[in-house]
Amino acid sequence: MINGERTIARPLRWGMVGGGRTGQVGYKHRTGALRDGTYELVAGAFDLDAARGRDFGTMLGVNGDRCYATYEDLIAGETAREDGVEVVSVATPNFTHYEITKSLLEARIHVICEKPLFFTVDECDEIAALAENNGLIVGVTYGFTGHPLVQQMAAMVAKGMLGEVRIVDLQYTHGFNAGDDVDAPEAVKWRTNPKTAGATFVLGDIGTHLYYLSEVVLPHLKVEKLLCDRKAFIPSRAPLEDHATVLMHYDNGARGRLWVSSVNAGNMGSQRYRFVGSKASLEWSDSHPDQLLYDVQGEPNRILHHGMPYLEDESLACDRMGALHTEGLGDSWSNIYLWIAEAIDAKAQGDDTFLKTHHYPGIAAGTEGVRWLENCVRSADAGATWVDFQ
Amino acid sequence: MINGERTIARPLRWGMVGGGRTGQVGYKHRTGALRDGTYELVAGAFDLDAARGRDFGTMLGVNGDRCYATYEDLIAGETAREDGVEVVSVATPNFTHYEITKSLLEARIHVICEKPLFFTVDECDEIAALAENNGLIVGVTYGFTGHPLVQQMAAMVAKGMLGEVRIVDLQYTHGFNAGDDVDAPEAVKWRTNPKTAGATFVLGDIGTHLYYLSEVVLPHLKVEKLLCDRKAFIPSRAPLEDHATVLMHYDNGARGRLWVSSVNAGNMGSQRYRFVGSKASLEWSDSHPDQLLYDVQGEPNRILHHGMPYLEDESLACDRMGALHTEGLGDSWSNIYLWIAEAIDAKAQGDDTFLKTHHYPGIAAGTEGVRWLENCVRSADAGATWVDFQ
Amino acid sequence: MINGERTIARPLRWGMVGGGRTGQVGYKHRTGALRDGTYELVAGAFDLDAARGRDFGTMLGVNGDRCYATYEDLIAGETAREDGVEVVSVATPNFTHYEITKSLLEARIHVICEKPLFFTVDECDEIAALAENNGLIVGVTYGFTGHPLVQQMAAMVAKGMLGEVRIVDLQYTHGFNAGDDVDAPEAVKWRTNPKTAGATFVLGDIGTHLYYLSEVVLPHLKVEKLLCDRKAFIPSRAPLEDHATVLMHYDNGARGRLWVSSVNAGNMGSQRYRFVGSKASLEWSDSHPDQLLYDVQGEPNRILHHGMPYLEDESLACDRMGALHTEGLGDSWSNIYLWIAEAIDAKAQGDDTFLKTHHYPGIAAGTEGVRWLENCVRSADAGATWVDFQ
Amino acid sequence: MINGERTIARPLRWGMVGGGRTGQVGYKHRTGALRDGTYELVAGAFDLDAARGRDFGTMLGVNGDRCYATYEDLIAGETAREDGVEVVSVATPNFTHYEITKSLLEARIHVICEKPLFFTVDECDEIAALAENNGLIVGVTYGFTGHPLVQQMAAMVAKGMLGEVRIVDLQYTHGFNAGDDVDAPEAVKWRTNPKTAGATFVLGDIGTHLYYLSEVVLPHLKVEKLLCDRKAFIPSRAPLEDHATVLMHYDNGARGRLWVSSVNAGNMGSQRYRFVGSKASLEWSDSHPDQLLYDVQGEPNRILHHGMPYLEDESLACDRMGALHTEGLGDSWSNIYLWIAEAIDAKAQGDDTFLKTHHYPGIAAGTEGVRWLENCVRSADAGATWVDFQ
Repeated sequence: MINGERTIARPLRWGMVGGGRTGQVGYKHRTGALRDGTYELVAGAFDLDAARGRDFGTMLGVNGDRCYATYEDLIAGETAREDGVEVVSVATPNFTHYEITKSLLEARIHVICEKPLFFTVDECDEIAALAENNGLIVGVTYGFTGHPLVQQMAAMVAKGMLGEVRIVDLQYTHGFNAGDDVDAPEAVKWRTNPKTAGATFVLGDIGTHLYYLSEVVLPHLKVEKLLCDRKAFIPSRAPLEDHATVLMHYDNGARGRLWVSSVNAGNMGSQRYRFVGSKASLEWSDSHPDQLLYDVQGEPNRILHHGMPYLEDESLACDRMGALHTEGLGDSWSNIYLWIAEAIDAKAQGDDTFLKTHHYPGIAAGTEGVRWLENCVRSADAGATWVDFQ
Repeated sequence: MINGERTIARPLRWGMVGGGRTGQVGYKHRTGALRDGTYELVAGAFDLDAARGRDFGTMLGVNGDRCYATYEDLIAGETAREDGVEVVSVATPNFTHYEITKSLLEARIHVICEKPLFFTVDECDEIAALAENNGLIVGVTYGFTGHPLVQQMAAMVAKGMLGEVRIVDLQYTHGFNAGDDVDAPEAVKWRTNPKTAGATFVLGDIGTHLYYLSEVVLPHLKVEKLLCDRKAFIPSRAPLEDHATVLMHYDNGARGRLWVSSVNAGNMGSQRYRFVGSKASLEWSDSHPDQLLYDVQGEPNRILHHGMPYLEDESLACDRMGALHTEGLGDSWSNIYLWIAEAIDAKAQGDDTFLKTHHYPGIAAGTEGVRWLENCVRSADAGATWVDFQ
Repeated sequence: MINGERTIARPLRWGMVGGGRTGQVGYKHRTGALRDGTYELVAGAFDLDAARGRDFGTMLGVNGDRCYATYEDLIAGETAREDGVEVVSVATPNFTHYEITKSLLEARIHVICEKPLFFTVDECDEIAALAENNGLIVGVTYGFTGHPLVQQMAAMVAKGMLGEVRIVDLQYTHGFNAGDDVDAPEAVKWRTNPKTAGATFVLGDIGTHLYYLSEVVLPHLKVEKLLCDRKAFIPSRAPLEDHATVLMHYDNGARGRLWVSSVNAGNMGSQRYRFVGSKASLEWSDSHPDQLLYDVQGEPNRILHHGMPYLEDESLACDRMGALHTEGLGDSWSNIYLWIAEAIDAKAQGDDTFLKTHHYPGIAAGTEGVRWLENCVRSADAGATWVDFQ
Repeated sequence: MINGERTIARPLRWGMVGGGRTGQVGYKHRTGALRDGTYELVAGAFDLDAARGRDFGTMLGVNGDRCYATYEDLIAGETAREDGVEVVSVATPNFTHYEITKSLLEARIHVICEKPLFFTVDECDEIAALAENNGLIVGVTYGFTGHPLVQQMAAMVAKGMLGEVRIVDLQYTHGFNAGDDVDAPEAVKWRTNPKTAGATFVLGDIGTHLYYLSEVVLPHLKVEKLLCDRKAFIPSRAPLEDHATVLMHYDNGARGRLWVSSVNAGNMGSQRYRFVGSKASLEWSDSHPDQLLYDVQGEPNRILHHGMPYLEDESLACDRMGALHTEGLGDSWSNIYLWIAEAIDAKAQGDDTFLKTHHYPGIAAGTEGVRWLENCVRSADAGATWVDFQ
């Protein structure tokens, strides 16, 4: 159980690119980073509007001198200091991830980047090589897998409690884009423009969360082929999609189905995961993250609660609030940020043994997400046909 | 609201083929038929074991002389009487539906038949013509659409409360066949054998319920093309399936996805329907049939309860228990049987005006179910490819 | 599992007093009685308006000659026939229960009466003696205890699966009387008038259901003392109550609390029962009667579903729909009516051995309900003070 | 919406007494304080074991010199520094609250103290006067009222959306003390000992949360009289209670009932609040804090979700994660800590205008909790009789 004791020697000097006053995601990064004494926010290029960014950064407690107009300025300014940032989070629109990450890594700064990571697997591979060469970590903020009961699912599957996995049912839908985009906020506009969002809208924006979480729970399964059927119910979003269904065949014979949509009018349930095995199933939703359904065929259904002694060690280890007390998304993000801090610390110390078994969403996970998107788009653009997973 | 007053002049003289002591479905037929004074059980060929069938029929209150060994005997015996049966329910394995129905219709007896109706659309068309020529009704026991809140959904969609329908999400899964069939009961064995079940297992057994209910709610939508991916996780069931996913494109541009499975280990939630429109969505499950979720984008989610004055007339008209008091599947079956009785009565009296607008699951609905199955199988057998709906 | 086979030799000739066209409860009686071939509706005094009652009875299939204007006429007419009614259900306002029941018993007709049974325990005792002397049964329609999972709770408590029972938490509330009674229907008016309703409104109308169900589950516990605090939020209902809280001390040291109200605005959840033991708890609601929560301290919470093989025999024996298929209140009423029919049949045959262990809500259960009401009123009228249970 | 921008000029220098490595509650304090840049943890007397406390504090990032053995040492050490702590949180057993708080206030340090605040109202009054005289704030960690939907309830009641409040139904139960205390951890032992816990166990430990939250939602209602029935199902806990029921009469005629227990075996639902008015009701549980049920009589039930634009400003103002993303108990604590920081800042600046309307749990709220406990004990000790609220 996490109680705030620092698991690394001292706080990492941390900066942000993006995540300014008007967005939602910046606060998730900060609340994720600042609770465990593992990060100290010392610099930032928070906003395209430099004055606003500086004002904002100051209100976050960052020295005005270290509130920069651009990420280039941030790199220049911080690399010039002895106490410059060691790690920077990138919370900007998708199309900027690659160049900012690359620049940071070249400046020998660790990176924590939003998903979807980059536009292509090629870019991912290039960045992975760069990070490796420079001895740096690239973390990816798949923010939902820090929930203790996600780790519980992974541990139960690993122990064979489900038997052979047969069916994977994944859903992440909401209805916030059910109307058109005429008066949409900036965050919607760039997400529906291929130039700024990449080749997908909801597949990348929310579908990659589903896919990564399924990888965490089912690390031994690989997709062999898939079929993606996507559509823009609001025509102006085409060729990007606001709705998609993906069917997947796994290498063990399992079948997967996945649904992402931002036009599921009125739906607040959001995410739903069901992993069906030959003996039992697990079902979890981020909307009630403290409960996990464990359904053994022929027995009463069971509801497992976070923080309870009957859970696996992997789940209890990352619990923060304790049984009866609700964990929220902020707690999950804190775990993700903590795990990445531990990776950065180990990398800095050359502790490869630790890194070999340490679980966190890194460049490999980010790359797999982009690979999955590439396969989805290839299938969809070929008329929603089956494609071999490449 | 239904209070037991007879809506037809006198009870129909009713018989059963199948539905004997050892099965579950027979009781559903009887509880459906016998509550409103619209049917009187007077004859039956309840069991392949004639003596057991006679004993069973007697315990149901049927005169021993009218407990027959076979359906042929029943037809012979009953047509010889002045007070012979007017309508017979067929609750036997799939492969017998066609021949029994045909024989009954030729003997000028109305038929109420289990789903899936027959093996082919050609058989359906032939039977439809025969029924029409002989002035008879063929009802089909799609037992879930008698729930008042299913009628509520249809009425709300008809009034345009959802806007344009965009997404249809259908699921009927359970886990009772998660294990193999070595010691399976007879009802499982004939359902997994193509000779007795037809070309499908779960698609026909439970998927047709999903498809019919969606037709009731969305009568204006037609499937243009579909893709069906099916699999037998228990290999002995092949070529039939214990799991299938179907994607559908509707003529208005809507997208559908459907999941049927009997290997969803531990799943007791069973059916889930979600109809997503441009303004709002409806979600209903047969496991809590008294509640209907009505999700208007941007407003609090609403839970509608059966029997409440704010519901549409179509829903209140078929309510039996009244608000606060739970309706069960038996109540839904009673509505189905009542509606079929009213159709038979109107047919007998030549009341075509009534029949034109009277809603009940008849031969057309049964035919559409078989047509959908044929399209699913065609797609699946072609490698889970898209096929035009024919 | 119930499949409609008659458990008694022939249908009982059955009549009704009350339960006419405009009420809700009459249909519950009929649907309860008419599914299993154990009752045949042959006579009735359905309505204070004789013509309407005759018309209604005819539409139920009763011969017009046996649709009577009054219960006195019914008794006179039916006792004059060789095939007169054997049992009559009384579904009239509370103040008439005693005199109608008495007259029926004196005419040697079994009675099935609505709750609360009579106004006083003295009346109950008198009727019990009369029934005993005349060899007749008095059944009471506590309609919720026929749910299979109520029987499951009783069986689990009996097996000691809860340990020592410590806490009993009972709730039956709704909001249908949140507004005043200016335009209230007749059924509300007589229920809020002491002359027609007796000394209580919601305590008798819905509270007796809670108390009886708790007796079924906890037959070994006796109330030693109680405190009742009641209030009429709509003043015109005083001295009767639309809200009451009852605290109870049981003879084993257990503590009970009970809440009844008809001004719980918007509450549709209705009934909630929780039985807490030293090892585990059970929780059930009539609004989702197919699920039972079984909470063992320190283990995952369990949800038991009706009809599943892991349930106790007592529960499976009265299941009608089978697992996955919802049971409703109509199914529970059918069980109650069936159990009373079996009691009447045994009584008629002098089978005292059967009656000794046969479970059904009879005169003793009805009497205990009235006794509980008397104690509640005594406490409330003394200023919500503790009274010894007498 | 909260995004981490500091609402006060600079972080408060903050210390802790108690909250060491082995407890759960310390982390809640830290996670509450450290996310918004309003507190900086600079000192502590974390543990009775001085060495362990120093080690622990160091791991939290506190300078070893400022990790003290006792609270007296902390006061001595910190008051000697120019940059000494400005505010200290007291997370120690109940019996120490009074003396530690008093000493801190005398040393002119603001205090944030655990509930139940002190043993008697007299102590509370004395401390209130001391704080007032010294210009200091005493905050109380009623940690659940920081949930945005609690503020939503208060705002809706204030706007009259419920009509006249009639019924208040409060429950906080769990089963973690269902067994005896033979091997219980220290935190249970001191809580069940009158010398260290005060005059109550569960009433003070969890009941005060219920009472305070109800005060936040219903500030205009006052308890006029109450009745408390309490019991120790585990006899060694007597005279303290592990189960209690409290009935309350409010000055507007409303009725309240409250249940606290730590022997509700297997119960994980924990808290339940229902506020019933003449027009509508609100229901909320901390176990799903992101949903609020809003039940208008005669309309579909509504589920409100945190972060949605249709909510009241008071709720949106303290939202942290935004719609669709779960808030947890940590977020609620952060709001409480933030509000207290703002009070301290205003007090330091003599901004009485701000303080007059600023909402936070302070000494008055703590006092009311102790007053309620005194009344409960007085009633219980008099044999669970009604007592006028004093």
